[in-house]
Amino acid sequence: MTEVITAVEAADIRFPTSRQLDGSDALNPEPDYSAAYVTIRTSTGQAGHGLAFTVGRGNEVEVAAVRALAPLVVGLPVDEVLGDLGGFSRRLVGDSQLRWLGPAKGAIHMAAAAIVNAVWDLYGRREGKPVWELLSDLTPEQLVDLVDFRYLEDALTRDEALDILRRAEPGRAERRQRLLTEGYPAYTTSPGWLGYTDEKLVRLAKQAVADGFTQIKLKVGADPADDLRRVALARQAVGPDIRIAVDANQAWGVRQAIDWMAPLAAHDVYWIEEPTSPDDILGHAAIRRAVAPVKVATGEHCHNQVMFKQLLQAQALDVLQLDASRTAGVTENVAILLLAAKFGVPVCPHAGGVGLCEMVQHLAMFDYVAVSGTTEDRVVEYVDHLHEHFTAPVRIREGRYLAPTAPGIGAELHPASAAEHRYPDGPVWREEHPA
Amino acid sequence: MTEVITAVEAADIRFPTSRQLDGSDALNPEPDYSAAYVTIRTSTGQAGHGLAFTVGRGNEVEVAAVRALAPLVVGLPVDEVLGDLGGFSRRLVGDSQLRWLGPAKGAIHMAAAAIVNAVWDLYGRREGKPVWELLSDLTPEQLVDLVDFRYLEDALTRDEALDILRRAEPGRAERRQRLLTEGYPAYTTSPGWLGYTDEKLVRLAKQAVADGFTQIKLKVGADPADDLRRVALARQAVGPDIRIAVDANQAWGVRQAIDWMAPLAAHDVYWIEEPTSPDDILGHAAIRRAVAPVKVATGEHCHNQVMFKQLLQAQALDVLQLDASRTAGVTENVAILLLAAKFGVPVCPHAGGVGLCEMVQHLAMFDYVAVSGTTEDRVVEYVDHLHEHFTAPVRIREGRYLAPTAPGIGAELHPASAAEHRYPDGPVWREEHPA
Repeated sequence: MTEVITAVEAADIRFPTSRQLDGSDALNPEPDYSAAYVTIRTSTGQAGHGLAFTVGRGNEVEVAAVRALAPLVVGLPVDEVLGDLGGFSRRLVGDSQLRWLGPAKGAIHMAAAAIVNAVWDLYGRREGKPVWELLSDLTPEQLVDLVDFRYLEDALTRDEALDILRRAEPGRAERRQRLLTEGYPAYTTSPGWLGYTDEKLVRLAKQAVADGFTQIKLKVGADPADDLRRVALARQAVGPDIRIAVDANQAWGVRQAIDWMAPLAAHDVYWIEEPTSPDDILGHAAIRRAVAPVKVATGEHCHNQVMFKQLLQAQALDVLQLDASRTAGVTENVAILLLAAKFGVPVCPHAGGVGLCEMVQHLAMFDYVAVSGTTEDRVVEYVDHLHEHFTAPVRIREGRYLAPTAPGIGAELHPASAAEHRYPDGPVWREEHPA
Repeated sequence: MTEVITAVEAADIRFPTSRQLDGSDALNPEPDYSAAYVTIRTSTGQAGHGLAFTVGRGNEVEVAAVRALAPLVVGLPVDEVLGDLGGFSRRLVGDSQLRWLGPAKGAIHMAAAAIVNAVWDLYGRREGKPVWELLSDLTPEQLVDLVDFRYLEDALTRDEALDILRRAEPGRAERRQRLLTEGYPAYTTSPGWLGYTDEKLVRLAKQAVADGFTQIKLKVGADPADDLRRVALARQAVGPDIRIAVDANQAWGVRQAIDWMAPLAAHDVYWIEEPTSPDDILGHAAIRRAVAPVKVATGEHCHNQVMFKQLLQAQALDVLQLDASRTAGVTENVAILLLAAKFGVPVCPHAGGVGLCEMVQHLAMFDYVAVSGTTEDRVVEYVDHLHEHFTAPVRIREGRYLAPTAPGIGAELHPASAAEHRYPDGPVWREEHPA
């Protein structure tokens, strides 16, 4: 009997994080971290889990988008899917009717991400490997077969991608071993949410250093005087050797970004993240030229590989922050890692939210083992929220992600957590909005 | 009693156009033209209608997105909304949780378009004016108040926008009169769908010329030999004086676009539309440099004003094809028209689909009366499908759109048409998929 995919389930899961102002920033004052949580089931009783992260309202739209894609997936033989994950992604993203909702952007693309990641999770479980290891064991040819080169070839050809991967091949075993012993560097955003008091900021910044982090990040962009005071306080708290990044979460126009960054730069800011619209490639390039040596970082809202291609071509960023579920999951992120390697730009994945740390660590670790071959100037974001809801939560020690060993991609929620936070009928929400 | 918005209704309406291969192109082989059809109702019994166009599957996601935005609208006083349509749009597009699904792109942005256009429809009905006339009667100050300049000011400031509008003010009355007598130039895509036979293409191309059109458009991008043969046949059919545009609907990579266009150019192609990914600003710029004097046209999938800003800044297009319901409706399109005027690029709106001709003509006519002040090298797309379902269908005479006189934006469906095509329970679909 051929094993086939029998179901693509989508659940609306929301965590009431707005009650604490965790995750507050210039454009997201009151997020309720949420997930369109996907479970793929097969005829032999196997399952894979993925999710698309959102910040509350609209999570039901994401769930509807997953359900719209599900008929393209249900009934497919598992071997056929896992044997051609590049083709599988292209069919999901390229469906001739559903692509109108994007193309390759927004709710429908994030839904594709959740499904693609669930399939990678299934693949990892079947092989008994965490996804970073699964990817790192693929041959260069298998990896480039994942990439949709249709719109990339003016920046990265198949042969160039193969070259990048082949150059990294000899060191794979050694780096894999080092990863298992040393982990992968992280930075923390926990001290810097916009809703926190100065006292809490200082306390958490000191705590971050004590915990072994060498980089912290602060949210900025609501008020210039507040920003300057908070950055100065943080610098005082952590001393000169810790990197301080700031994150405007798209609050500024191009000229405004340049103006607001000038006074902050005096406190040795390492990068400015999302200074303006995530769509503004030319704007990021202009800001980058103006704010150097402060680096420009962006990517968590960059919706697909064509946008990343241009950010790189336009020399618009110093730090590429890919996301686990904004672009179409692991498969498209392989292309993005290869683009970054071609242009020599370090990848520092976006995380936080719910389940993003769990998923994105696999991409950074695969990058280290099999693509860029280095962790220099590379850090994965870390936020210490909501990990307890996952069956294989991230493990952080001395400011580093320990390499996950559980098979899969890490997006599986504890069934009890999923049930409690189901929106709008789970106990957590019934209590919030009693009938 | 203050008049308030009491309901934002969204219906899933689909037309089974795939049965005839009308609308077939390189990436849309079998579209079922569809609409997330929005009706806004007020406490005094007034209504406004708008829609987001899709091509079939996924229309239910668009409906879900409209419903997600509805709570931001229901309960608002109508005077407050109509008195600050710029602020109204910014709140819809900028909702701190829902914007995560975009931001300003994909399903959630198209849903905002449907609502914004329904509100403009309501406004037009209240004033007893078609929307082109309503817009053309606003002062330059009222018009620039519609624009969200946050991410535009590096390309277009409020003062520059005011200057553009003030320069056009003296000629408004004369152009308005001319529009009412002469109409606005159109071109037709009806001969050129990819699914049509050569015989049908030639017959419809000749018919288009006989009907008074001076430009036709052919779909290309599936097979180079077919494209060359069809363009040659069309040129032979229409003679040397009719413009022939071609449309690849995103089929090509950058280099491929340049290569495939070379042989077609010999037949005096006027523009190449959507040669590559709609997100590829730098790619369009490279293609434009290579294929000149053939012009580059794009915009129907350009998701917001920040992308249009960059296409203009990068000199990536010769013809800007705004869409009525991809960007956030009339309000954002005012900004896009002003950007185009600043950069001196003609706007030739995308239409076809269902209801797009009806809506988009208002934008072109407003552009003529109050923004660019000219129809030179400007044409609105026309496709002769599905107009009979609207209460105020477009009127075409001698290859020109007659200026609509019915109040509103023209998106209202006949109630019987809406009921028949409701998906999945309307009679048209029950017949297609009998239970």
